[in-house]
Amino acid sequence: MAGDLILLAAVSLLSAFQQCYFAWLVGKSRMKHKVMPPAVTGAPEFDRTFRAQQNCVEFYPIFLVGLWTAGWFFNQELASFLGVLYVFARYKYFHGYVQSVKGRLTGFYLNLIVLICLIALGAAGIVSSFLDEYLDFSIMKKVRKLL
Amino acid sequence: MAGDLILLAAVSLLSAFQQCYFAWLVGKSRMKHKVMPPAVTGAPEFDRTFRAQQNCVEFYPIFLVGLWTAGWFFNQELASFLGVLYVFARYKYFHGYVQSVKGRLTGFYLNLIVLICLIALGAAGIVSSFLDEYLDFSIMKKVRKLL
Amino acid sequence: MAGDLILLAAVSLLSAFQQCYFAWLVGKSRMKHKVMPPAVTGAPEFDRTFRAQQNCVEFYPIFLVGLWTAGWFFNQELASFLGVLYVFARYKYFHGYVQSVKGRLTGFYLNLIVLICLIALGAAGIVSSFLDEYLDFSIMKKVRKLL
Repeated sequence: MAGDLILLAAVSLLSAFQQCYFAWLVGKSRMKHKVMPPAVTGAPEFDRTFRAQQNCVEFYPIFLVGLWTAGWFFNQELASFLGVLYVFARYKYFHGYVQSVKGRLTGFYLNLIVLICLIALGAAGIVSSFLDEYLDFSIMKKVRKLL
Repeated sequence: MAGDLILLAAVSLLSAFQQCYFAWLVGKSRMKHKVMPPAVTGAPEFDRTFRAQQNCVEFYPIFLVGLWTAGWFFNQELASFLGVLYVFARYKYFHGYVQSVKGRLTGFYLNLIVLICLIALGAAGIVSSFLDEYLDFSIMKKVRKLL
Repeated sequence: MAGDLILLAAVSLLSAFQQCYFAWLVGKSRMKHKVMPPAVTGAPEFDRTFRAQQNCVEFYPIFLVGLWTAGWFFNQELASFLGVLYVFARYKYFHGYVQSVKGRLTGFYLNLIVLICLIALGAAGIVSSFLDEYLDFSIMKKVRKLL
């Protein structure tokens, strides 16, 4: 079992590490702009950095659910590849947002596409498993028979 | 294994989709009230919409932990049903909060009840599994013997 | 399977309960300082309480990923022990932060150390499983042979 999901676990850990890194960058930006906690506004660059991290935080559990359902019920390798792409898109998003408000858009749209793909693959995998489990109707077998 | 938890995965994916939907509504409210990022305040309706989504974000990982422990260690069907109820309560909460501050209360209390049920079921399931595993004492068998 | 991960599930549920407790303390602080939703600032003590909870929320999914990968791929007992330590550190952090901005530091550093340990153990476990699975090279067996 552990072996079947090792790629998903590796991508999850990578993304968790990235989330820590973003939190650390917010801390650094606090120092740089002298925005002392608990304040969360103060300088335009800090505000953008903080909001970038907050957006990553908001989407992180959604990403994990998408990654694991797509990987578990559809295909682990494909889901893990999309997961790595998501981590890359978050990197683009975060650093783009720190530069300027417009700078976040490239990463943001890439994030969105990856997330939609993961959720769609997860949904497809779950529907297919449902049919197989409860109606004894395997799409995969039908496809194989047709070919 | 995948089959045993398919309902939990389906409810998780549904709730992940709902979280995306809430984030999208915040974006729409930004446009409507011309609150440009990284600002998170500006118009009373936007402020409520944003806070509603933030509250959903805060409780999302807690919900997932409750859902999966209750489903894994107690009963998958019951946990999934409560999960769907939670998604419905979040819908009520979000749209109620967008309308008015008081409007959030019905959904909020329903959320709370569902969350308490999930955590309680998860705790009951874990305690029962502990007794079974480490003390070889199965509550289920005792109950069955009594009847 | 359920039995192998029961300690991780128990720690997850404990931490989920703690997150609920923090959210409840924020609500109590709202009443005390008369900060009505959707406002999230108003009184210095409330601001600190709110920021303490937000920080816990931000790190919660990261903690869960670290806990489960460390527990799954390295050692369940060690990961669960670190998980309980994390819950304790969060308790120190939260109540320290409510008292004063400086008061959060002890708990914060303990949190950080535990999180780094969990992520490092998770990474070690995953790398070792990778070697074992894809290269048929088991570190554990080598170590045992050497001794």
